[in-house]
Amino acid sequence: MENAGGYAGRLLRVDLTSGKIAVEELNWESARKFIGGRGYCTKVLFDEVPEGTDPLGPDNKVIYGTGPLTGTPVPGSGRHIMVTKSPATNLFADTYAGGHFAPEMKFAGYDFIVIEGKAPRPSYIAIYDENVKIRDATHLWGKTTWETETLLKEEVRDRRARVSVIGPAGENLSNLAIVQNDYYHQCARGGVGAVMGSKNLKAVVVRGEKSIKVARPKHLLNWLTDIEKTVQASMEFGVIPNRMKMGTPLTLNITNEVGVLPTKNFKYGDFEGASGIDGYAFRERVIADTACFACNLGCTKVTKAGKGPYAGAVVGGPEYETDALLGSNCGIDSIDAMIYANVLCDSLGIDTVGAGNVIAWAMECYEKGILTKNDTGGIELRFGSESAVFEMIKRIATREGLGDILARGVKQASDVIGQGSEKFAMHTKGLEYPAYRPGPVSPAWGLFYAITERGACHRRGWPTQIEKDKLEQFSTEGRAELVKRLYDQRIPWHCGLTCDIVVMFFGLNHAHAAISLSAVTGWDISEEEIQKLCERVASLVRAFNIREGATRLDDTLAPRSFEPDLRGKGKGKALTKEMLNTMLDEYYTLRGWDKNGVPSRDLLAELGIDDVAFELKKAGKTWTNKSKEVRSNEKDGCRQ
Amino acid sequence: MENAGGYAGRLLRVDLTSGKIAVEELNWESARKFIGGRGYCTKVLFDEVPEGTDPLGPDNKVIYGTGPLTGTPVPGSGRHIMVTKSPATNLFADTYAGGHFAPEMKFAGYDFIVIEGKAPRPSYIAIYDENVKIRDATHLWGKTTWETETLLKEEVRDRRARVSVIGPAGENLSNLAIVQNDYYHQCARGGVGAVMGSKNLKAVVVRGEKSIKVARPKHLLNWLTDIEKTVQASMEFGVIPNRMKMGTPLTLNITNEVGVLPTKNFKYGDFEGASGIDGYAFRERVIADTACFACNLGCTKVTKAGKGPYAGAVVGGPEYETDALLGSNCGIDSIDAMIYANVLCDSLGIDTVGAGNVIAWAMECYEKGILTKNDTGGIELRFGSESAVFEMIKRIATREGLGDILARGVKQASDVIGQGSEKFAMHTKGLEYPAYRPGPVSPAWGLFYAITERGACHRRGWPTQIEKDKLEQFSTEGRAELVKRLYDQRIPWHCGLTCDIVVMFFGLNHAHAAISLSAVTGWDISEEEIQKLCERVASLVRAFNIREGATRLDDTLAPRSFEPDLRGKGKGKALTKEMLNTMLDEYYTLRGWDKNGVPSRDLLAELGIDDVAFELKKAGKTWTNKSKEVRSNEKDGCRQ
Repeated sequence: MENAGGYAGRLLRVDLTSGKIAVEELNWESARKFIGGRGYCTKVLFDEVPEGTDPLGPDNKVIYGTGPLTGTPVPGSGRHIMVTKSPATNLFADTYAGGHFAPEMKFAGYDFIVIEGKAPRPSYIAIYDENVKIRDATHLWGKTTWETETLLKEEVRDRRARVSVIGPAGENLSNLAIVQNDYYHQCARGGVGAVMGSKNLKAVVVRGEKSIKVARPKHLLNWLTDIEKTVQASMEFGVIPNRMKMGTPLTLNITNEVGVLPTKNFKYGDFEGASGIDGYAFRERVIADTACFACNLGCTKVTKAGKGPYAGAVVGGPEYETDALLGSNCGIDSIDAMIYANVLCDSLGIDTVGAGNVIAWAMECYEKGILTKNDTGGIELRFGSESAVFEMIKRIATREGLGDILARGVKQASDVIGQGSEKFAMHTKGLEYPAYRPGPVSPAWGLFYAITERGACHRRGWPTQIEKDKLEQFSTEGRAELVKRLYDQRIPWHCGLTCDIVVMFFGLNHAHAAISLSAVTGWDISEEEIQKLCERVASLVRAFNIREGATRLDDTLAPRSFEPDLRGKGKGKALTKEMLNTMLDEYYTLRGWDKNGVPSRDLLAELGIDDVAFELKKAGKTWTNKSKEVRSNEKDGCRQ
Repeated sequence: MENAGGYAGRLLRVDLTSGKIAVEELNWESARKFIGGRGYCTKVLFDEVPEGTDPLGPDNKVIYGTGPLTGTPVPGSGRHIMVTKSPATNLFADTYAGGHFAPEMKFAGYDFIVIEGKAPRPSYIAIYDENVKIRDATHLWGKTTWETETLLKEEVRDRRARVSVIGPAGENLSNLAIVQNDYYHQCARGGVGAVMGSKNLKAVVVRGEKSIKVARPKHLLNWLTDIEKTVQASMEFGVIPNRMKMGTPLTLNITNEVGVLPTKNFKYGDFEGASGIDGYAFRERVIADTACFACNLGCTKVTKAGKGPYAGAVVGGPEYETDALLGSNCGIDSIDAMIYANVLCDSLGIDTVGAGNVIAWAMECYEKGILTKNDTGGIELRFGSESAVFEMIKRIATREGLGDILARGVKQASDVIGQGSEKFAMHTKGLEYPAYRPGPVSPAWGLFYAITERGACHRRGWPTQIEKDKLEQFSTEGRAELVKRLYDQRIPWHCGLTCDIVVMFFGLNHAHAAISLSAVTGWDISEEEIQKLCERVASLVRAFNIREGATRLDDTLAPRSFEPDLRGKGKGKALTKEMLNTMLDEYYTLRGWDKNGVPSRDLLAELGIDDVAFELKKAGKTWTNKSKEVRSNEKDGCRQ
């Protein structure tokens, strides 16, 4: 297989234990099969991180990935992926961030960076084209993400260097720890920051001078013009308002109305104080708009808090997820408080989704008397208390008192606290729910959370509008097809690698993926091949989790999600376990998986990944008796 | 000269008198010399519209122009130019609009559209690739711009058609009449809407299916990536806030502070009510962001009025110029009033700059008793009266009462009213001042207004920040060099054709122009050639005006601009006529023109436009005795 356009063609491998730095040629066969991003990185993880690896041990790996589209003028091509085995779920984790780090990796000449082992002391990796060094970071340990980024740019004497960094939360191995780049962009989910922290790795700094070769520039230019034409027609004033350019918090107005806005630890789907944190409240605090590399959508907004003790605080965000999880889900109705909470999370290196979720859970524990002032270190941990939220964020970062437990994420925290608190710990597979409440109003979100491999995930597709407008209410009808379709729509772009918000708002489809990927790589990639890529990637990621012991029983929801709604459109109705099972059956069938969600050897062979089938068989994790009997052994077929 | 990349290669000529429609091959020699846009269109105007042509007669022409970059993915390439002989100035007029009309012209297969003659009845031109028709528009006459655009899209049964249209003001031959496309984008200056109206031409509708061939796609892609890299580095959060993405009204905060914000008919340079109409007030009314074709800056904001009798009014804007001229210059401090005034102007087809300027002048006439309630039709035409502004805008469109006089623009209106009102009629060459107050605080704006060929113009460069930060205060030092440099920076892009806001904010220079134009056309265009293009275009436009009788005496300012400032930083100081003359001398010298601002035959020959020299000589408009004696005959060397 020969070198193709778009790729830098090289993988950088850094062993922090030995200090060995190696540059490997890309595995072109893998590149052809998996393109890049989620596909390629997962294959590396599957091949190199064996079953049962301790996520926080030296054998786990952190993989930074780009794709052939990265750094080209394709819209949204400024995004990178990080893949690892998650300490929160003990399963596969992928997490993405925008900004400018990804193109800079390509400019430096690397499609992927694989980091393994554990450094003997706090370290950072400095990359300037061929010049790659592991450097001491003792002086940076304990510093905030923002301080570290600024100090590192000074240290490498290059204002244009791109920095990917952890905060104190990552150093302290919190399962909520993020990796942040370009000050305001986060690989936020799955605790990838803790994996970096466990390796004593504070940051990766990258700067490059190389250019990216596009194989068929004329084709790409024509496609870019076509896309511009199509997109602009649909964005025309008065026709479709360009919603995403308003920033993500306008989503809150929709979810509150639809009834899927997480409120008070997902008890309700609408919030009486929504107007305090909605898109319009947010908009009044915006002081600057900005955009990631090669993006003409530009959804990133910089805000400044206007009132309260935190007036003047400036942050990139709050995005909708932050706004909803730290806002309505904690009973808080002030956009200024959201801005400040966002400042704390970003600077300390904490996932705002996980933090909002676990703090709301703790608030409910406090409300129910499961946690007392004694446990909270004197904090009145009540819904609606801004100061309680701020204080808990800080303690999560430092792991002080209750913060040490919350830092583990809501699943592990509820395992520690017990007393029935597991019943309202809102997660799937150990990853906290993001800001859509699954339930009778949205079975589709229920299915999405159940089947996503990293645990409850909101970036595989956005079913809210279609489910509301086109599908029968309170029913499972059409959900499996919708979820698979949306999930698959994004796969080529998650491999490509571009931003899924751009994909959604520009309505990019598999034909677009085939054209743009063919133009950049020079391979002739058909739409059929793109569909096969989707099945291949979905089955590969699934296989990783299966090898780690995940079964159909893990494709489930938090117990609260099966309870009848207390108010709103779905009042008295429930998303039942039977409904979820129906959707799972349908989804597995659409994927060509068996009743236990296991891809057969034949399917894997057909997808060209026989080696994965072999590995699964070796691990005894194919069609086992256990999984065969799941449905008869467990009445409801989905574990909690 | 062979066909080059980027161009459609064809010019569409429509004679409205005879109904003849012709498609001509592009004049490739002209294309090589003038690239496109301002350069090429001016050459057509110079060659085809003879000296002394009545701007509102059938012999005047309306020229729509694009350039080789139009419709490619080059940032800001969604802009078109309109060139004509202006009824406001009787001189050259160029005016530009963003949106999507320009790329659609190219997609239909035309670089330029030349419209001549006069239709026997209200008509519109419908273009769908080769299919070009002159159609009856009787049913559209009298309708607003917005109604017309919507009706025409229905009439041609194509939601994706692009429409360029005049409103009632154009039909009624107001010198303030605009031509508008894509609902919110305007070719606003010089009365080009009146020229269309005089031809009985209500609109041009265009839709095309062709693609644009880029000669060296690989070069273009590499350049696009390089630009993205450079630009993004300078836009990084915390380094340079991405100001333009906030929309243009943030400029008001700057000009008010610097002291060049037009206030109460340019009497002052700062406004006590600025906070009511500044960038932050504006920002609170934004309901959507949008972007022109291929723009990743996206400065267009859609706003909704929040208070007052006009609550709920929605418009694309108000841009800074609108906000300042209809706001501070009329003594109004309400952003909601600005939104509504913008709605009126856009829907009726009126230039907001010209309207704000002439209404403020009328307010001063009223204040001084030159106009009375008798003249105004009962309107209390006082500074600060929102309802007076609204009413006058409507009357300008319908030419009712005083509106009939104001509709002529401030120069011709003050000629009619007399009584010393000419002394505070704020224009150069007959075109109303835009929203920067020339004076002791800003001699650079004075020079810009004096030398721009269409009359006082704000889009040839933006000297405000550099003049404030880098040049000696209250001095002429460095202004001529600055004005020429900024003016020339934009020329290749005004020919290219891309947006000058993008050029300014991305810091695009002649090297960038040479690379991108070479990549698109396939010609080897050097930086030196770009500089020569600048001199060629500047001298050609100058030559058009000279042939029409303009002299150095027309390169002047309104009398008020030579009076000492009444308050602010420049209090008691003045921009004197001597200062302007010094700057003019320096500017002409930098251009290689003589003391009268006339390019010599040698210069024109060196620039490869001997034919222009020949025409000037034929018209007796080269170094004449009259112009030779200007400086001795008139004490101050600049006419008022």
